[in-house]
Amino acid sequence: MSADTQPVALIVGAGDGLSASLARLLVGENFRLDLAARNIDKLAALKEETGARLHRCDAADPAAVASLFEAVGERIDVVVYNPSYRVQGPIVDIAPAEVRKTLDITAFGGFLVGQQAARRMLAAGRGTILFTGASASVKGYANSAPFAMGKFALRGLAQSMARELHPQGIHIAHIVIDGGIRSSRRPDAGGRDAMLDPDAIAATCLDLIRQPRSNWSWEIEVRPWLETF
Amino acid sequence: MSADTQPVALIVGAGDGLSASLARLLVGENFRLDLAARNIDKLAALKEETGARLHRCDAADPAAVASLFEAVGERIDVVVYNPSYRVQGPIVDIAPAEVRKTLDITAFGGFLVGQQAARRMLAAGRGTILFTGASASVKGYANSAPFAMGKFALRGLAQSMARELHPQGIHIAHIVIDGGIRSSRRPDAGGRDAMLDPDAIAATCLDLIRQPRSNWSWEIEVRPWLETF
Amino acid sequence: MSADTQPVALIVGAGDGLSASLARLLVGENFRLDLAARNIDKLAALKEETGARLHRCDAADPAAVASLFEAVGERIDVVVYNPSYRVQGPIVDIAPAEVRKTLDITAFGGFLVGQQAARRMLAAGRGTILFTGASASVKGYANSAPFAMGKFALRGLAQSMARELHPQGIHIAHIVIDGGIRSSRRPDAGGRDAMLDPDAIAATCLDLIRQPRSNWSWEIEVRPWLETF
Amino acid sequence: MSADTQPVALIVGAGDGLSASLARLLVGENFRLDLAARNIDKLAALKEETGARLHRCDAADPAAVASLFEAVGERIDVVVYNPSYRVQGPIVDIAPAEVRKTLDITAFGGFLVGQQAARRMLAAGRGTILFTGASASVKGYANSAPFAMGKFALRGLAQSMARELHPQGIHIAHIVIDGGIRSSRRPDAGGRDAMLDPDAIAATCLDLIRQPRSNWSWEIEVRPWLETF
Repeated sequence: MSADTQPVALIVGAGDGLSASLARLLVGENFRLDLAARNIDKLAALKEETGARLHRCDAADPAAVASLFEAVGERIDVVVYNPSYRVQGPIVDIAPAEVRKTLDITAFGGFLVGQQAARRMLAAGRGTILFTGASASVKGYANSAPFAMGKFALRGLAQSMARELHPQGIHIAHIVIDGGIRSSRRPDAGGRDAMLDPDAIAATCLDLIRQPRSNWSWEIEVRPWLETF
Repeated sequence: MSADTQPVALIVGAGDGLSASLARLLVGENFRLDLAARNIDKLAALKEETGARLHRCDAADPAAVASLFEAVGERIDVVVYNPSYRVQGPIVDIAPAEVRKTLDITAFGGFLVGQQAARRMLAAGRGTILFTGASASVKGYANSAPFAMGKFALRGLAQSMARELHPQGIHIAHIVIDGGIRSSRRPDAGGRDAMLDPDAIAATCLDLIRQPRSNWSWEIEVRPWLETF
Repeated sequence: MSADTQPVALIVGAGDGLSASLARLLVGENFRLDLAARNIDKLAALKEETGARLHRCDAADPAAVASLFEAVGERIDVVVYNPSYRVQGPIVDIAPAEVRKTLDITAFGGFLVGQQAARRMLAAGRGTILFTGASASVKGYANSAPFAMGKFALRGLAQSMARELHPQGIHIAHIVIDGGIRSSRRPDAGGRDAMLDPDAIAATCLDLIRQPRSNWSWEIEVRPWLETF
Repeated sequence: MSADTQPVALIVGAGDGLSASLARLLVGENFRLDLAARNIDKLAALKEETGARLHRCDAADPAAVASLFEAVGERIDVVVYNPSYRVQGPIVDIAPAEVRKTLDITAFGGFLVGQQAARRMLAAGRGTILFTGASASVKGYANSAPFAMGKFALRGLAQSMARELHPQGIHIAHIVIDGGIRSSRRPDAGGRDAMLDPDAIAATCLDLIRQPRSNWSWEIEVRPWLETF
């Protein structure tokens, strides 16, 4: 496949959970892959496995995000914004600097990445931008005000971008991940599927990427069968 | 494929739009197909094409729905509830009998079918029940009170069943179809994809059917890229 | 106050809880009061206290509702629709007749009363119609499918009527009562205010009735401070 | 009324619209009033009229907000957070610094003020904190991504605080103001009540302040009768 025809995907906030599953799935779908993270040392194995290019990037830094997109190049078909930062505790005990950091990483970085992605995709007249949300995107929990602020803000961004960019051919989707994701550190005890399988979330992401423009979803919630909601 | 191992799908409220697309898609996925409708004469061609068995059934009649499920048999993997009835006009002009009819076809029939489906699926410990909603499922429009009542009620049914049956292994999904579906009578003018393609909605339904239980969505909205929301 | 200038309120589904509090409050605000219920024997004391006129009426019977409004007369400023019927249990165990009854009392009766009220209020160019909802109006609980269906449907009716009738000068409001209401049978243990005080809900209803048309709410949720949501 | 028994209200983001109406209403209800704004010169007439104390304060500056609450004193019964900042335009054209400013003023300042208010109110075991939202709090509009981000975030903050602080006796309320507010610069043309009257919104705020803890609303939407929604 030539450089001109191979689709390109960029995952920002890449780590070893959902983003790794999505990386593997997209490479299997013949995407060329770019991965960005604040700490890319942890991505060595995934780079080896997928052939992805790695980019060190602070997603909340406008200049760094602009550089990232220059490094990726003109063509970009799929962008996933995955970073988030969470601090918990009674509202009276939370340091204001932590709230700023949560808003920066969880929401402001989403704007920066979404803006750069939109520029390239509008030029091409197509593309998909995915934002990963959480239970806190639609429900503000006690003792978790900053995360609610950040995830609500990211959802507001995604909904606004969907209204603005869908009629211009860019598909925006927001995935509400309502439950814990299993990992080597948090395995799915007893094979009960009580925790989300990151490969399954990635498959739902791919379903959204494949939707034709006559039939677009701007949001989907996923949760384990045993999860109360 | 033997009768024991072939999965079975039943579409209630089958016609020539979404249900026909879904019928073709499921048969292609090796499902044995049963189609139910009040008027099955119009389904002759689809029966020919898909090999489906046809069942004449008034979905709002408890005895008829019980007979339908007896005719389908013990095994049933996927059930789709699609019937709806709409009357429009100022609230002061709507005949009460029309409201009853709307509630009966749009919501009460969904309960009857959902109940029968749940009985068989609980015995098997698995299965998927899909309910088709509309813009009116989440937004009550002026001059359309009965349809809002019926579609809101169907959504309440689906959400309640999801909370009850997900932990028992039965997947419930509600699809909010927010836009007009193209057909031979209402074609997509100029190839602009301004109307939903029923094949694309069917593909989204299949995405839901395939979700593993660690990653279930109870609801998804689909709309054309040009649709205001 | 003359018959011409005294405002008139009708409460349908009157009993001894919220409706009794609202009756007392409205009489204190100089409303002439009409109370309708299937069983009016239990309303003797409230009639004595408030001077209300009593009407025996099955709210799900179109002819009975039409007769009720004829008996009340031309002028009607406030109408409250309060009846509901709930049956609980696993979806596979619920009798279809119970679902019909739930839809009839909880939602269809709301249409009938709302339609008659709208006719009189449109003629006058003003009025307020209140519908009482429950937690189940916005959340479909497990083992409670029929009530979710009925209360979702009533909310769809209220939202549709709001969009249709607000621009014609009729105020529609839906009150989501998210918690148990205290009563002599279910007192508020220990004065903790863990249960809703019906007098307080009635005060919120009056707040809505008094809103000027430049500032209308179509919905409000109320719950005790200790209620989880 | 002695200093000990007179209730105290603080309005942050005071100007000449809703906050002025609320100031007058609260003074009429015997509150002692404190008004904070970045520019307090414009508040001279309101100070004269209401006897309010004025505080110059940048609500997005943690130290300034801490100083504000020290100046107000220990007792504080009602706090209203009203500031917001809006920039509009295609997402590709918006300067990142404008997004930060929107998040700072619209949401981060709400956290700072809410945190300080919660500290004093938790010590007293009572109080009310109001956050003013907009249409954009619940609907992300095209060409308005930053405002959607800020107002969604503020709503997430309010909902999280409601879940955390309601059971501790502090009432949190979020008012979705869905429409334009009339003013001398934007009068209500022709007396049609097509724009929100700030006095009426203030009355709804007072309704919320007066709700007893057995019957709390965490959110209410208000809009003109002629407003499409």
